[in-house]
Amino acid sequence: MHFDLVIRGGTVATASDTFAADVGIAGGTVTAIARGLPDGARTIDATGRLVLPGGIESHCHIEQESATGAMTSDDYYSGSVSALFGGNTSFIPFAAQHRGQSVEEVLETYHERAKKSVIDYSFHLIITDPSDAVLKVGLPKAFADGVTSFKVFMTYDKMIVTDEMMLDILVTAREHGALTMTHAENNALIKWMVKRLLERGYTDAKYHAISHPAAAEAEAIHRGISLASFVGAPLLIVHVSTDAGARLVANARTEGHAIFGETCPQYLFLTRDDLDRPAPEGAKFCCSPPLRDGRTQADLWRHLKAGNLQLWSSDHAPYRFDATGKLSAGPNPPFNKMANGMPGIEMRAPLLFSEGVRKGRVSLNEFVALTSTNAAKMFGIHPRKGTIAVGSDADIAIWNPDETRTVTQTGMHDAMDYTPFEGMSVTGWPETMITNGRVAMADGVLLAERGAGVFMKRAPFDASGYQQPVPPELDPKIAFGAKLL
Amino acid sequence: MHFDLVIRGGTVATASDTFAADVGIAGGTVTAIARGLPDGARTIDATGRLVLPGGIESHCHIEQESATGAMTSDDYYSGSVSALFGGNTSFIPFAAQHRGQSVEEVLETYHERAKKSVIDYSFHLIITDPSDAVLKVGLPKAFADGVTSFKVFMTYDKMIVTDEMMLDILVTAREHGALTMTHAENNALIKWMVKRLLERGYTDAKYHAISHPAAAEAEAIHRGISLASFVGAPLLIVHVSTDAGARLVANARTEGHAIFGETCPQYLFLTRDDLDRPAPEGAKFCCSPPLRDGRTQADLWRHLKAGNLQLWSSDHAPYRFDATGKLSAGPNPPFNKMANGMPGIEMRAPLLFSEGVRKGRVSLNEFVALTSTNAAKMFGIHPRKGTIAVGSDADIAIWNPDETRTVTQTGMHDAMDYTPFEGMSVTGWPETMITNGRVAMADGVLLAERGAGVFMKRAPFDASGYQQPVPPELDPKIAFGAKLL
Amino acid sequence: MHFDLVIRGGTVATASDTFAADVGIAGGTVTAIARGLPDGARTIDATGRLVLPGGIESHCHIEQESATGAMTSDDYYSGSVSALFGGNTSFIPFAAQHRGQSVEEVLETYHERAKKSVIDYSFHLIITDPSDAVLKVGLPKAFADGVTSFKVFMTYDKMIVTDEMMLDILVTAREHGALTMTHAENNALIKWMVKRLLERGYTDAKYHAISHPAAAEAEAIHRGISLASFVGAPLLIVHVSTDAGARLVANARTEGHAIFGETCPQYLFLTRDDLDRPAPEGAKFCCSPPLRDGRTQADLWRHLKAGNLQLWSSDHAPYRFDATGKLSAGPNPPFNKMANGMPGIEMRAPLLFSEGVRKGRVSLNEFVALTSTNAAKMFGIHPRKGTIAVGSDADIAIWNPDETRTVTQTGMHDAMDYTPFEGMSVTGWPETMITNGRVAMADGVLLAERGAGVFMKRAPFDASGYQQPVPPELDPKIAFGAKLL
Amino acid sequence: MHFDLVIRGGTVATASDTFAADVGIAGGTVTAIARGLPDGARTIDATGRLVLPGGIESHCHIEQESATGAMTSDDYYSGSVSALFGGNTSFIPFAAQHRGQSVEEVLETYHERAKKSVIDYSFHLIITDPSDAVLKVGLPKAFADGVTSFKVFMTYDKMIVTDEMMLDILVTAREHGALTMTHAENNALIKWMVKRLLERGYTDAKYHAISHPAAAEAEAIHRGISLASFVGAPLLIVHVSTDAGARLVANARTEGHAIFGETCPQYLFLTRDDLDRPAPEGAKFCCSPPLRDGRTQADLWRHLKAGNLQLWSSDHAPYRFDATGKLSAGPNPPFNKMANGMPGIEMRAPLLFSEGVRKGRVSLNEFVALTSTNAAKMFGIHPRKGTIAVGSDADIAIWNPDETRTVTQTGMHDAMDYTPFEGMSVTGWPETMITNGRVAMADGVLLAERGAGVFMKRAPFDASGYQQPVPPELDPKIAFGAKLL
Repeated sequence: MHFDLVIRGGTVATASDTFAADVGIAGGTVTAIARGLPDGARTIDATGRLVLPGGIESHCHIEQESATGAMTSDDYYSGSVSALFGGNTSFIPFAAQHRGQSVEEVLETYHERAKKSVIDYSFHLIITDPSDAVLKVGLPKAFADGVTSFKVFMTYDKMIVTDEMMLDILVTAREHGALTMTHAENNALIKWMVKRLLERGYTDAKYHAISHPAAAEAEAIHRGISLASFVGAPLLIVHVSTDAGARLVANARTEGHAIFGETCPQYLFLTRDDLDRPAPEGAKFCCSPPLRDGRTQADLWRHLKAGNLQLWSSDHAPYRFDATGKLSAGPNPPFNKMANGMPGIEMRAPLLFSEGVRKGRVSLNEFVALTSTNAAKMFGIHPRKGTIAVGSDADIAIWNPDETRTVTQTGMHDAMDYTPFEGMSVTGWPETMITNGRVAMADGVLLAERGAGVFMKRAPFDASGYQQPVPPELDPKIAFGAKLL
Repeated sequence: MHFDLVIRGGTVATASDTFAADVGIAGGTVTAIARGLPDGARTIDATGRLVLPGGIESHCHIEQESATGAMTSDDYYSGSVSALFGGNTSFIPFAAQHRGQSVEEVLETYHERAKKSVIDYSFHLIITDPSDAVLKVGLPKAFADGVTSFKVFMTYDKMIVTDEMMLDILVTAREHGALTMTHAENNALIKWMVKRLLERGYTDAKYHAISHPAAAEAEAIHRGISLASFVGAPLLIVHVSTDAGARLVANARTEGHAIFGETCPQYLFLTRDDLDRPAPEGAKFCCSPPLRDGRTQADLWRHLKAGNLQLWSSDHAPYRFDATGKLSAGPNPPFNKMANGMPGIEMRAPLLFSEGVRKGRVSLNEFVALTSTNAAKMFGIHPRKGTIAVGSDADIAIWNPDETRTVTQTGMHDAMDYTPFEGMSVTGWPETMITNGRVAMADGVLLAERGAGVFMKRAPFDASGYQQPVPPELDPKIAFGAKLL
Repeated sequence: MHFDLVIRGGTVATASDTFAADVGIAGGTVTAIARGLPDGARTIDATGRLVLPGGIESHCHIEQESATGAMTSDDYYSGSVSALFGGNTSFIPFAAQHRGQSVEEVLETYHERAKKSVIDYSFHLIITDPSDAVLKVGLPKAFADGVTSFKVFMTYDKMIVTDEMMLDILVTAREHGALTMTHAENNALIKWMVKRLLERGYTDAKYHAISHPAAAEAEAIHRGISLASFVGAPLLIVHVSTDAGARLVANARTEGHAIFGETCPQYLFLTRDDLDRPAPEGAKFCCSPPLRDGRTQADLWRHLKAGNLQLWSSDHAPYRFDATGKLSAGPNPPFNKMANGMPGIEMRAPLLFSEGVRKGRVSLNEFVALTSTNAAKMFGIHPRKGTIAVGSDADIAIWNPDETRTVTQTGMHDAMDYTPFEGMSVTGWPETMITNGRVAMADGVLLAERGAGVFMKRAPFDASGYQQPVPPELDPKIAFGAKLL
Repeated sequence: MHFDLVIRGGTVATASDTFAADVGIAGGTVTAIARGLPDGARTIDATGRLVLPGGIESHCHIEQESATGAMTSDDYYSGSVSALFGGNTSFIPFAAQHRGQSVEEVLETYHERAKKSVIDYSFHLIITDPSDAVLKVGLPKAFADGVTSFKVFMTYDKMIVTDEMMLDILVTAREHGALTMTHAENNALIKWMVKRLLERGYTDAKYHAISHPAAAEAEAIHRGISLASFVGAPLLIVHVSTDAGARLVANARTEGHAIFGETCPQYLFLTRDDLDRPAPEGAKFCCSPPLRDGRTQADLWRHLKAGNLQLWSSDHAPYRFDATGKLSAGPNPPFNKMANGMPGIEMRAPLLFSEGVRKGRVSLNEFVALTSTNAAKMFGIHPRKGTIAVGSDADIAIWNPDETRTVTQTGMHDAMDYTPFEGMSVTGWPETMITNGRVAMADGVLLAERGAGVFMKRAPFDASGYQQPVPPELDPKIAFGAKLL
């Protein structure tokens, strides 16, 4: 048994188990998990450390142009470096279609951009223009090429898909084993509120939260679930930010549908009160869905523990607090002109570790599941990614569970100029990062080379076990008399 | 005490009470309810009869052009005569705006048409084009003129209002004390199903039911309630045809919202199996929402008894079973080319009496509430209409509770050539009808003159007691921190 | 037309309607409701006044010995006088069986006691010992004699019935058309809490609320509903004091079961904070279920408006604030030695009028339903009682809707020495009371004679329209395969 | 690296992951999971096989006397052998207290009995007599000695605990980190039904199902959850057999409570129709809760997939189909005299594999979780048991996923004379079983020695992350004002 690398003496955890073992790595994959492994070409002492599957950041915006052409501050280099320092060994940013673009063109662009990445990557497409060509050619080809998930927006004028498009999309996804993700907020309700607030002169950042009420999220989640369960297609509701939304997701699964939910640190660590910091500071906290309140924070912790939400993602959307980003509309923009989103790719896992694992709200195994394994399974890269198992890629995060740092922007590795979590005290940090068997970061020093990451071709979504009614139009003779009536 | 008319010896029932009394009428109104009244100028012996408030048919399509220009077979004369023979003394058909029309123009047209009516009438507007002129001038003027309710469609391409329009409409209604009604089905889901069914050659009438699944109704009801409760506006969901829909309505009221529901005889007396009668017979049973199944029938009886649905209306939509109506697209049209709707204005009350009151599913007082009083209250004409009380208009139906008839089209008084209830045995029929103190029908003979009916100016909707949050855009300072966030 | 009494010029309201009319009374019953009635032997001018059905107080403890032998301060004289001054013209106190007593003996005792009453009365039995003799002889005879409802306790060691007894009782009630009422709290949970609190020295009045948690009520309501719906028997949950409880009641009715709910003023006008007034003052506010909090008050208003709860009763339990009542265990008794209950028979209707009708939380007709008509219907005395209709007993309360009084104990007519509502400002009071056509109270002066009230023989409970499964043991051949499995 | 045993070439699965690896075992534990391990002292070729954590049967009755003194047919030898052949490497039978017995006495008896076991074992106590001695001495000592779970019955006269006992028990368990399990059926409802059915001469086996209606289970589950969540104690509802029950369990977890559910093969593979087989055959299918119907089977599959139920256990209760067991009351006993329960310890895992994994209803990892890992975690023996991980006991089941057998009693290894699953075709069977690193069974040959199993001392239950309110009696000052009011 020869090893390129051995991680010795640590405590290994998977989504299921925690145990003391050495991890032996050869050829970029884990080849042995054992006690008393011989030294490898290189051996790392992980005594007193946690040896965890590298995080998989499955919701982030990297080198992505907004519908208005603004580019995120992070490109695939800075974004991947920041992800890496935050405990992640792979990520799945969005490859966003602008209307009129072909899927092929989009993917080509993003494949080019992603070459800089220091960690492995894939893409979720964002589909804003589900033309026939997209549905019948572009998407199937993308799926076949391993891009097996994509997001659609139920809100934002420049990206919204109608319910009818949504049905076409969901059925296409179902046919090809792809997973649809959706940003679920009722567009009309938000626009209506924005218009009325602005008409009355209410422009402060805090009105962003007022303009995106919980009712808008709950309505759209209900509608999305109605459509997806009708056609028997799986659906992932991203960034669930309300108790009502999480309950709808959980109930749908109880009804047998393949409906899943994700939430993000900002909804458990920040509140709408942050929007009310002295202008223009509040702009830093402008994201959609918006920050809610303390009660909702407790609700979401409860839903995480109960397994009602499966993914913990950052929704990293790096718009700087300057004229290139948050303040592009002026030094004190009205709430509807502040770029939506906030950075967080580097804080995602540490925050959950510190407040979740260390304070007993979730177990270490649940932490692994939420930050890595569940994403790997849902997005078709398990068991290559998302676990520490023989044969898996050696994507490993060695955490010091006891290290305490105060969060500062200077400590971040992204291209941003602020972090919304500034000043928080966080205990438990990734100390050494291993990607495909190579030490990519150690003790705060980046060792991975630009472009070290490779594209991950992903498998179809596995919806087996969920209720998947035959859509009645495929066989109405059967359907007549069935429950769909 | 002088009376123009005395109804002697009957059993009077209101929505609350049942008692033996004579009813004395003078000047068109009830002036005395008593035992041992002296004879009036005319006296009717009601021994062994039920003396009930005249029915108020609040959902019917009379002399209404469809969006494609087709006119219902019933005009205000035949429609009102049929209503009268079915136990009704007033009705509230729709005055439908076609896109581009002003509210004033619409009402002028329908006021003119309605002059033929033999019973009192008002209109619900149908708003398909909520332009600024409509919202700021037309509707407020209509409300002020006593047309205090209107319907919007969440489906049908030519009539649908968007969610954003819906919010504008709901807030306008709220401000003016008007009641919004809605046909709640998800348009996209239906269109998507229709398209796919047709593409595959499934054109029989029964596919109409498949193309309008229960999920489409439940989704739209949830959405409608979300929007209405968000702005604190009352909303009436018309023709609720599913258990899921009725539960959403009931739950919304439990949450404090002014949300109401109506159902119709077809959903409790017919099923989708009727759509499967030999073509083109099935076309007779094509309505939207579509007929459901036996289990749903039982569900709806349960919801009626529990008070979860408040109105029992016919949705009388008289399209003849010939080339002017159901078969306008050919002798055996595909399901999506059959005019939607069925007649029933004359059978609405007798069906509920026969299967509801006589079989103990609802009480006589609940019958009165469902067919008359609740509509009067909801639509702002109580206590002038909807009860037998001193000072109320003498709109009275004298029922023979024991008379049994087999339903036939020849027995109907509408301008139709079929009744979907053909052949049913029905016990309990209105025998004598009194409108505004005049005998309008007796023993099957029409006595009312063409044009005897008058326009009823209606009061605003009274939503007191329901939770009516101040929409936050009216006072965001208060709203910030409130539940709407 | 001759009248003993005419009430002229008032506004009459029933559970359904409100109208201006004179009311003519002869022989103790209403014989005419009309405009322009001739004067009667006596004529009352009710201009500017509301003419309402006399209240029916259906939950009160009058001249009742507790299980420990303590007697309520009010006997049938003072209790009925206080009820009368509070707008009531009849009441249905409890006739409580002590274990070992026969039903006949109990009723004989209470019939004797009730002879003093100034208003009409009936009894609900309280059954604590459902022996064979009680179930097979006593109760059926009582039902036949017009005592068609009874209460059982799911709590209190000396009165509790087991679940098995409950089933026997419910089936007996079902067979005979009687209505079971229940005080639903989990006895074990309460006892367990009391024991632990006392062991730890927590004896203040406020711990009474802690010892009777909301969970105890919700559990017992769920259990009671489970048992009643299983055997298809109607069940009235008295004094529902929690949102969870009211929801269970409403949901059961949506499921088709004949399950009803009552609440009481104390749960909407007082909170557990009142228990925390300086000792021993808190003892005045000790009742079971206990007072809750402000949020629950709002919940219960909502449930009243939604129709989820049908009865508004006082649960008048008059234990004086002295050694004969509240302080019988000493000048500052521990919370578990304070007599449970509080007076309120005189304030029940005025409180609902003032805060409900005048503030728009319920309509005048809903007020009439909640305070009179619903009780009359549920307890089998409608339409003799509970409405103003021809043929009904002339039990009428003439209210001055604009009179404002500050509540004081000196203004009450019971035999108590405190009112928990002391100091509240209440607008709307009964001014003149008419019982069976006689003026019983006018302008604060009692005119009714001791013993003027008579026993009301009540009809069976009408559960028609509710789902009433055949209990499977009656026909298991049918039941096998049915839902009860 | 030296290995006593190497399992080479198989596909290993845990509750989280599936991968190809060799497993190296030394000193009874797994010491290496790797590719290309050197041979061990013994090497097993697992090519084409699944290498799974040995099953943990956590609900079975072995060498247990019923309250009436009848002994199960299986003792710890035959029971453990049958478990082993069914893929299990450890089990946790019940150690049942009869009333009056001390916990110490019970455990001593069962420790003695269990010495024969061929697989590792622990016990769940059954507590029927929670005296002070039991609660304050016996249970705490048992918990300290590693018996950290116990069951109480909410039904059966000889075993039932009252609600008050339940609270004492739950709090005791909470204080000591133990897990309470409960058989939740409403005793009164069942007894009442049994009595009435027998009185009417309905004695066939099928009436067993009628006498234990779904309502009895749902009621008791609701009550159990109410009590446990009130005191913040974890509770496992065993053998959940209804949709309603599973929903209550799932909802409680969504509310933040540590409430769990188990179901058993009989509820997904058999129905009440089996009870109706020709007498006395039906007696074989008599268990409590009873078999339900086809719809419930589908419901329970849904709940398993959704994660609403965590455990899949056999509830093996081996009463022979002869005079020692099922027919002890005669050759054709009435339904209430048939011993309750059925065998199934050997079929538990194969049934789930065949119908669950192979038919895509649950994944292989979910299978592992349901049959092994979840039990290990819930009962405090993880990660020693319940997984294949370095450091874990080498308890391994090597399955042939493609082997098909028809189930026959002759193929079983228990001491029974029937299997309720007779004749079913089952694909996927354990082929080689390894316990603590020793081959205990291979190719149908038992290799383990009598007494090879050892007692497993279990850790406390870990309820971290669940809402655990401080019971208010512990600090009423805090509690006053808190939600428990």
